[in-house]
Amino acid sequence: MKIEEIKIEDLHPEEFIKQKVEEISSIVGTGLAVNALSGGVDSSAVTMLGHKALGNRLKTYFIENGLMREGEPQKIAALFEKLGVHIEIVDAKAQFFKALKGLTDPEEKREAITQTFYKDVFGKLVKERSAKYLLQGTNYTDVEETVAGIKRQHNILEQLGIDTQEEYGYKVIEPVIQLRKSGIRKVAETLKLPKGIYNRPPFPGPALAARVIGECTSERVETVRKATKIVEQELCNTGAFQYLAILHEDKVTGIREGKRDYGLQIEVRCWNSKDAITGSPTRLSYETLDKLAEGITTEVPGVVSVTYNVTKKPPSTIEAI
Amino acid sequence: MKIEEIKIEDLHPEEFIKQKVEEISSIVGTGLAVNALSGGVDSSAVTMLGHKALGNRLKTYFIENGLMREGEPQKIAALFEKLGVHIEIVDAKAQFFKALKGLTDPEEKREAITQTFYKDVFGKLVKERSAKYLLQGTNYTDVEETVAGIKRQHNILEQLGIDTQEEYGYKVIEPVIQLRKSGIRKVAETLKLPKGIYNRPPFPGPALAARVIGECTSERVETVRKATKIVEQELCNTGAFQYLAILHEDKVTGIREGKRDYGLQIEVRCWNSKDAITGSPTRLSYETLDKLAEGITTEVPGVVSVTYNVTKKPPSTIEAI
Repeated sequence: MKIEEIKIEDLHPEEFIKQKVEEISSIVGTGLAVNALSGGVDSSAVTMLGHKALGNRLKTYFIENGLMREGEPQKIAALFEKLGVHIEIVDAKAQFFKALKGLTDPEEKREAITQTFYKDVFGKLVKERSAKYLLQGTNYTDVEETVAGIKRQHNILEQLGIDTQEEYGYKVIEPVIQLRKSGIRKVAETLKLPKGIYNRPPFPGPALAARVIGECTSERVETVRKATKIVEQELCNTGAFQYLAILHEDKVTGIREGKRDYGLQIEVRCWNSKDAITGSPTRLSYETLDKLAEGITTEVPGVVSVTYNVTKKPPSTIEAI
Repeated sequence: MKIEEIKIEDLHPEEFIKQKVEEISSIVGTGLAVNALSGGVDSSAVTMLGHKALGNRLKTYFIENGLMREGEPQKIAALFEKLGVHIEIVDAKAQFFKALKGLTDPEEKREAITQTFYKDVFGKLVKERSAKYLLQGTNYTDVEETVAGIKRQHNILEQLGIDTQEEYGYKVIEPVIQLRKSGIRKVAETLKLPKGIYNRPPFPGPALAARVIGECTSERVETVRKATKIVEQELCNTGAFQYLAILHEDKVTGIREGKRDYGLQIEVRCWNSKDAITGSPTRLSYETLDKLAEGITTEVPGVVSVTYNVTKKPPSTIEAI
């Protein structure tokens, strides 16, 4: 199936929403559907579209995979409760860390997360609910990058010829697959999601696992989680497209109280971009870079070095792995 | 033996030179001495002091260890010939790469270079020459950092209780050990060395091996050598204390002509510092950072990402390993 892009200039959000709500209703019929909400703009828009179409026949889960930002599950669940949408938090941390154990190759890590998500966690939830449909926030950039072989996105299955019905027991519906991030933001705003959601910088499908080079142990994820919190606090008012902290596997020599400290390095990236296809590093002031370096080396145990990405996309990508 | 620092404000270069020339003469007597010139300010100053004291009884070698900058041995030899000092280039590349094979731990790499330098290469040269003395450019910061256990400098032996007479067959003379870099620059200038030498940014003892995280193969050293050339060309007029390129072992995802390219990362560091004890990242313009990133990702095969260090020393160190 060839996906046709709807460009931002051709998008009429009200019409788009009406059409997608009708499509979802007609596909699901009187059946049940489930979806997973991560708190990003894509899955948030899909949650609202799904609830408009199906009401209580859509059950929305927040999968706590141990790879999310600090306090994220509770924060997002509370926000949607206010909008009248109930979210169930599913604790699957142990399953994800077990699947990630010993893996260092980025594609193997992504694959482990995909398998754990779709097969172990979602497959089970769908069966419990007797749901036949899964709603998903796949977007047009995900499709492009996966088909081009740049990254295996966690939510591309049918495009790769994987029969979800046969493999996992459900069909996937992807209402925003023709849109890029900018279009989804418009739709999310029109759906009356709060600005904190529709303007939210993108966050990768594999969450903080995409920000850890090398093995994703819970300890290493905790390190990058702490760095992420500092980066997000410091950069949330820059207007940048996306900003992130990456924990490197390489260790570098540092010095603490006059003694050698062979420690960790965090790379900070902050992007100016319209659509994630191309991007350039935000020209942060050195005062801001100083604050980031000082905050991270002071508050995140084990970190002795902070770098800032200065490469454009291409040849870099937005995320490191 | 406790080394007493001579602070820059207490240094009288002419007197210092006179005193050191006398000391070297009196220690070596009518014997022979050798020294190794790397082209840095420390070994260049020592070469001139030694030749003032001993004339042709000091034999100066440039050890081509395969870890130097592009064209460095020939360039430095030609420069000293002009000053009337003959330099013999010794090709020891194969010995160094053999010693470095399979090593990834920074201290093990430094140790392998030290052993190859002092035992295999220098021990042999000293015996061939029947020299009893080795002149060396150890400085006060090297002593401090080694004693503090931050880094094992390649040229600290007696301070660590190693008897070079017994272990390698020669005694080490270290004429500039009481000075920091700024003092040595003054002495080098007074010795009439060219500005390109006395103002030269520091370069680590283990040379480019200190700029390769992970194993130092000749291929990986070639990668960092190419990046170093670009960094030095771009930053030589900044007035910075030191600037360097580091090849990481971590690989990151890049994108080339629309396809995934899992490639290499180069970290650039550029330091403002007086004495290497503390330092802060030079506030390079983003135009310069852009040029560095574009130059390195275009001209150095395999590199898809360039970062810039934004951490002060401490907790960072000047070099990464």
